[in-house]
Amino acid sequence: MPDSVFKKMEAMIRSRQQEIAKTLGELDGKKFTMDEWFREDGSGGGVSAVIEDGNVIERGACNVSVVSGHLTEAGYKKMRENHGDLQWNGNPIPYRVCGLSMIMHPHNPHAPTVHLNYRYFECDRPDGQPMSCWFGGGADLTPSYLYDDDAVYFHQVLKAVCDKHNQSYGEMKEWCDQYFRNHHRNEGRGIGGIFYDDLTTDKPMEVVDFATDALDSFLKVYVPILKERKDLPYTKEEKAWQAFRRGRYVEFNLLHDRGTAFGLMTPGARVESILCSMPRFAEWKYQYKPEPGSREAALVEVLETPINWADKKQSTYPLPPI
Amino acid sequence: MPDSVFKKMEAMIRSRQQEIAKTLGELDGKKFTMDEWFREDGSGGGVSAVIEDGNVIERGACNVSVVSGHLTEAGYKKMRENHGDLQWNGNPIPYRVCGLSMIMHPHNPHAPTVHLNYRYFECDRPDGQPMSCWFGGGADLTPSYLYDDDAVYFHQVLKAVCDKHNQSYGEMKEWCDQYFRNHHRNEGRGIGGIFYDDLTTDKPMEVVDFATDALDSFLKVYVPILKERKDLPYTKEEKAWQAFRRGRYVEFNLLHDRGTAFGLMTPGARVESILCSMPRFAEWKYQYKPEPGSREAALVEVLETPINWADKKQSTYPLPPI
Repeated sequence: MPDSVFKKMEAMIRSRQQEIAKTLGELDGKKFTMDEWFREDGSGGGVSAVIEDGNVIERGACNVSVVSGHLTEAGYKKMRENHGDLQWNGNPIPYRVCGLSMIMHPHNPHAPTVHLNYRYFECDRPDGQPMSCWFGGGADLTPSYLYDDDAVYFHQVLKAVCDKHNQSYGEMKEWCDQYFRNHHRNEGRGIGGIFYDDLTTDKPMEVVDFATDALDSFLKVYVPILKERKDLPYTKEEKAWQAFRRGRYVEFNLLHDRGTAFGLMTPGARVESILCSMPRFAEWKYQYKPEPGSREAALVEVLETPINWADKKQSTYPLPPI
Repeated sequence: MPDSVFKKMEAMIRSRQQEIAKTLGELDGKKFTMDEWFREDGSGGGVSAVIEDGNVIERGACNVSVVSGHLTEAGYKKMRENHGDLQWNGNPIPYRVCGLSMIMHPHNPHAPTVHLNYRYFECDRPDGQPMSCWFGGGADLTPSYLYDDDAVYFHQVLKAVCDKHNQSYGEMKEWCDQYFRNHHRNEGRGIGGIFYDDLTTDKPMEVVDFATDALDSFLKVYVPILKERKDLPYTKEEKAWQAFRRGRYVEFNLLHDRGTAFGLMTPGARVESILCSMPRFAEWKYQYKPEPGSREAALVEVLETPINWADKKQSTYPLPPI
């Protein structure tokens, strides 16, 4: 059964990558470049789909990788924090993993950055027991200017997907807020979404189905938001605020993100695919605080104290079929 | 004696901070802002001297901090890798530290970014033995466009300081190249300088004298270089290359720098003073490689394979008295 789980997950993410790159490429007017890569030692590879300096998207990537290897102790510690049943016994642990990781940074400061990833991980058990496997994934939204309508829509669609599959939106929403936090600034990276990690199950096919619907919901949500915001007029100051916020994005990804750290320490890592998550431009400014009462300050307030978006009244976007 | 060492080091860095801020502020035409700060619990504070959007310097900081506290296990591990005589015994270790940390990112892409820091650290020994102390410090140069003349001058002056104090320039130069390396890209952050860490001694006053001369050499070296480069004409493309290189600078500081990590995990850390090391602007570009044979490619070559600058013939800058 595990093999069919892996194959199903792999086929799913490969097809969604094509669909996302095609749809967003058409919306942008500039095609994604598709780079297929292989590790020299034959232990896997992937396809990186990247758009840069597009008409709508400043920088974005939707990457698939399918690799195998051996977990070293350091990698093992980074990767897993919630599997008490798996103990390090001193020997590298064979593993394979497939995943899709996507991030889009639009030009327009009124259009939010979005990130998602869905992955499946399998490894031998050091105690000789059959394979252990777990899932991870989720999606989160990072606006520079807050539109309640976008935030509510994003969360309500994800909640609908969770509800359909009997997954706890509440728990996944809370973990997302906790995980995507710039702890050194006591500030969220964005306005959240859902995130699950180290998800084990005796019914892995059901989790693949959940991940499929969750991933499928992305275009349904992000395309309407992007269409709504991409052509809004904006000032030089608003663009600078966006670059400043993207500095915070960089801080999260390089200081706190376990996935980035795990990726970069993996021998033979494809650095450019991992650091595709960086924005095209970022700024830093010493002790900069937005004017009290401004739209910029309103965003910071919400980043400091997350909101239960799904409980708010329905957004004006029509809810798509899930 | 340790107390007089601490006092001498503290007085030295405080006076040099004033001098650097005054001299570079005059050269720039915009004054540094001096922010004095104190920790709420009375465990120290510091002065952050910052310049932003100046005429010559895009962003720079010269910060002094004098703090005490207790090393937690995590902080202890980050801070020290080379003190076999100090073992963690399960109890937080009282410490005090004073240091000056400086970074200057000029506007002109032909003028190099420079970083230096000099610090002194004292802590109780967990085994009840008398106080343990060590020094750290160094200076390194990060050009976007390579001028051999600048690189040779920078290194030769540091070598003269090392020679005067019977410190090994060779070892410190090599450790600088090793430490300030973006290992994930197999590329140096810049063209090096000197770096020493965990330096213990039974003659701490002599190391304070060495640090004093090393710090004093900074203005003697950097001011002539800055004057030479600050008004050179440059293109939009050269400015973009600088921002791209500064993306690499950000990667080093957030992914690899032990000092940044230690600082940010310290309870009550002054985040804005630590992240003053960030450039004002940074860019990322997917799989960008400069044209073979270009000046940009020449820089990358040297970053990949460090050069023994001090062995090259003398620079055209007149060597200052050390």
